[in-house]
Amino acid sequence: METWRTAIVDAGPDHIRVRGHDVLGLMRAATFTDLIFLLHHERTPTAAERRLVDAILIGSADHGAGAPSCAAARLALSGNRQSPSAAIAAGVLTIGDEHGGAGSSCMDLIAAGLERARREALSFDTAAARLVDEARAAKTRLPGFGHRVHSTNDPRVDVLFGLAEEHGLARDGVGFIRALERAVRERIKPIPINVDGALAAILVDLGFPSIVGRLLFIVARVAGLSAEVLEEHSREKPMRIRIPVEYDGVPPKDNC
Amino acid sequence: METWRTAIVDAGPDHIRVRGHDVLGLMRAATFTDLIFLLHHERTPTAAERRLVDAILIGSADHGAGAPSCAAARLALSGNRQSPSAAIAAGVLTIGDEHGGAGSSCMDLIAAGLERARREALSFDTAAARLVDEARAAKTRLPGFGHRVHSTNDPRVDVLFGLAEEHGLARDGVGFIRALERAVRERIKPIPINVDGALAAILVDLGFPSIVGRLLFIVARVAGLSAEVLEEHSREKPMRIRIPVEYDGVPPKDNC
Amino acid sequence: METWRTAIVDAGPDHIRVRGHDVLGLMRAATFTDLIFLLHHERTPTAAERRLVDAILIGSADHGAGAPSCAAARLALSGNRQSPSAAIAAGVLTIGDEHGGAGSSCMDLIAAGLERARREALSFDTAAARLVDEARAAKTRLPGFGHRVHSTNDPRVDVLFGLAEEHGLARDGVGFIRALERAVRERIKPIPINVDGALAAILVDLGFPSIVGRLLFIVARVAGLSAEVLEEHSREKPMRIRIPVEYDGVPPKDNC
Amino acid sequence: METWRTAIVDAGPDHIRVRGHDVLGLMRAATFTDLIFLLHHERTPTAAERRLVDAILIGSADHGAGAPSCAAARLALSGNRQSPSAAIAAGVLTIGDEHGGAGSSCMDLIAAGLERARREALSFDTAAARLVDEARAAKTRLPGFGHRVHSTNDPRVDVLFGLAEEHGLARDGVGFIRALERAVRERIKPIPINVDGALAAILVDLGFPSIVGRLLFIVARVAGLSAEVLEEHSREKPMRIRIPVEYDGVPPKDNC
Repeated sequence: METWRTAIVDAGPDHIRVRGHDVLGLMRAATFTDLIFLLHHERTPTAAERRLVDAILIGSADHGAGAPSCAAARLALSGNRQSPSAAIAAGVLTIGDEHGGAGSSCMDLIAAGLERARREALSFDTAAARLVDEARAAKTRLPGFGHRVHSTNDPRVDVLFGLAEEHGLARDGVGFIRALERAVRERIKPIPINVDGALAAILVDLGFPSIVGRLLFIVARVAGLSAEVLEEHSREKPMRIRIPVEYDGVPPKDNC
Repeated sequence: METWRTAIVDAGPDHIRVRGHDVLGLMRAATFTDLIFLLHHERTPTAAERRLVDAILIGSADHGAGAPSCAAARLALSGNRQSPSAAIAAGVLTIGDEHGGAGSSCMDLIAAGLERARREALSFDTAAARLVDEARAAKTRLPGFGHRVHSTNDPRVDVLFGLAEEHGLARDGVGFIRALERAVRERIKPIPINVDGALAAILVDLGFPSIVGRLLFIVARVAGLSAEVLEEHSREKPMRIRIPVEYDGVPPKDNC
Repeated sequence: METWRTAIVDAGPDHIRVRGHDVLGLMRAATFTDLIFLLHHERTPTAAERRLVDAILIGSADHGAGAPSCAAARLALSGNRQSPSAAIAAGVLTIGDEHGGAGSSCMDLIAAGLERARREALSFDTAAARLVDEARAAKTRLPGFGHRVHSTNDPRVDVLFGLAEEHGLARDGVGFIRALERAVRERIKPIPINVDGALAAILVDLGFPSIVGRLLFIVARVAGLSAEVLEEHSREKPMRIRIPVEYDGVPPKDNC
Repeated sequence: METWRTAIVDAGPDHIRVRGHDVLGLMRAATFTDLIFLLHHERTPTAAERRLVDAILIGSADHGAGAPSCAAARLALSGNRQSPSAAIAAGVLTIGDEHGGAGSSCMDLIAAGLERARREALSFDTAAARLVDEARAAKTRLPGFGHRVHSTNDPRVDVLFGLAEEHGLARDGVGFIRALERAVRERIKPIPINVDGALAAILVDLGFPSIVGRLLFIVARVAGLSAEVLEEHSREKPMRIRIPVEYDGVPPKDNC
């Protein structure tokens, strides 16, 4: 097999470098968030960028043991107690379009809107109105808007937008999702931006492609899954979790 | 990287062979169970061996959607609907020492007993009595005995042992677990052999090492997981599963 | 949480039933392939259907240790030797649109073609020609056609179609993929139906929805992954697999 | 099913709290490493503790695309391109006793040595000498010592111990591994402490149980896996990775 190429890590015999940066120097002075940014962005962050990425990672790490990712990790540890990797992996596998995926979908939506505004020389409000009308016509949901629990306002949204504005990092991504929010209010009804929408707008403004929305959610959530696994391991007995099931299929058959 | 060696499959340009057998010939005349046996045993089974392996695979495939493996697969599909592989993998990851692992542990126990009887020239009853006494002294459970649900008798055990005897395949493995059952009854209390114990004894008699006990459980259970995933996908909505959680940790803190 | 409903398994305290069938009876007389069919189809197969499903499962189980699924399973076992479940799950996770996914994509294509022929009252050849023209215009590949290795003809295709015809099970699915093959030859160039296409056509004729194409590939491949894991475990040392990588990114930087 | 209890996250309708701390406050002012520490330790770290955990996470995040975890993640993405979760999970599944597990094994060793020194009122040197003699007698390797690549000295070890001493956090864990290093040199031959040993000693001194050694390695490595997945997705084609395999099994057989 030919040798793989890679641009990320140079794991030489004496030094490990990440995108050219000496890992020893990073170990002495950088934060884990600096490294996460560098691994996904090709440079280390400014202090303002670091603050925002820290806020996003903290806000996504854990939403309670009843979320599908945490419940799956605990179920796996419950049956397969020797393998914390298996439990964390089971949790990661529940993350997809429906769970943890709204952020990257909203990044796609914002990117499409910004591209359309630029290409067709539209104002953000006009481009946003068209996207909202198209979503209504197609009867698709707008990712980044609405929440089952926070029917009025998710307080994490205010924190994220407040930090972005305070640090001068609210740019076209934040601008465009605000335009979407206005278009939704005028054309449908007031639906608040949710935390997926807020982090999507900010990640666009930090220069990340939309797949990074999903990847950073996974990186953040693994910290929470790891803690759930630690608690399940130290507090609970194996096989404690049984889910009651009711059979509603065909009645018994006489068979061979 | 050096080339990997393998003894299993010769995937040449025109023919795929499994342990020397032409896959085209197998496709025409063999059963999937023949192939599973061949992949794990180096030859195809006799008709009697095939019957027993079919019975073991059928008996292990699915025990209901509330079992940890099935529940984890459904949770994963619920959040990550695009990926049936992720859901099946999440289910597989719950399988470990506590869930689906008793079969291979019981195979280890039987193998240790048979080795000891041979090496120390003991009768099966004497060797079994020593193992039972040691387990009592160490306060460890004997894998393959007892069941949460079937407090008296698991009917699958009778079917498996009946098939083994009818086909002349009940040998030292079945003989030794019967000796263990007698020793348990005399030294502790009557505890029935469970389905893990029955399949362990039979897999020993079929010549499989103990890791195969776990592997065949996974092969069988994946058929059930696949069906659970199909049902979840066709009947249920995304993110339907929320598990109620009660927080019993420290009270709110004033923090930065 | 409300109780889950399920139609598949009734795991009562004394009997396990699958879609109403007594598992004890199945253990005595059915094959594992019968159970797989029942779990995904709501009834047990005829002898002819069983033969075809056996052929499909055997033909998909293992294509050699260099395939992504097998390589990933061996890599996982190499680092995480205590967990056969983790290794098999890692192998399953490589299965997606690009690896093992052509079967279900081809089932979608055939289903779309059959629906169009019916709705627009077209002959199979006309409907197939339109699908081929649309794929050319969109520059998308036709799943189920062509192969990297078997540039002329995959012998498994002849076996599968031969079995289907011999048993009287070659119906509209096989008929439509033949029409597609003719349309490809006339409008592009002769490209043979590959094994994914053959099994797709047959699974359509057996009445399965397209997601089952992917699920049965996973069920089959897990048997092969299990054997690869067994061989890696018994023949190879931990951490034997290292892949040579060449760094082609930015040069060393002076950093903090 | 009874409600699950949890001590970690209180995901109420208006506020998410982690171990009593308001997530909004953490988002404004804490680092992701603070949250990781809090999730696994019940309180937020001091500045010195944060520095050490950052160094450990940075030093473990990525060792190049040829490591089993990264290779498995890239293989999975190569076949299953729609699912970054599946690729990251496949990478996590390679982490076990042999890959990434030496840290927690070394934490167990240090904990056993400290407990023995305390209980039997031995000096660290005497307790370490006994552990080394026992490992020699049992022919087991001492986790945390020696390295395939860095035959003399891994520079990350000096950085980690330097930071621990500079910040006044080198306590009994570091003291005991130094005693082990002396005992190894006197009783076997000079074998340097490796990076797993250094981080094990420091994690013991930070008050973590040994399972956290494995969990933090996973948390760190997921950041690297995520970046490898991003690079594979943006730079490489699907199914690019084929591993050459040589069949060394039985010759072709005439079979049915």
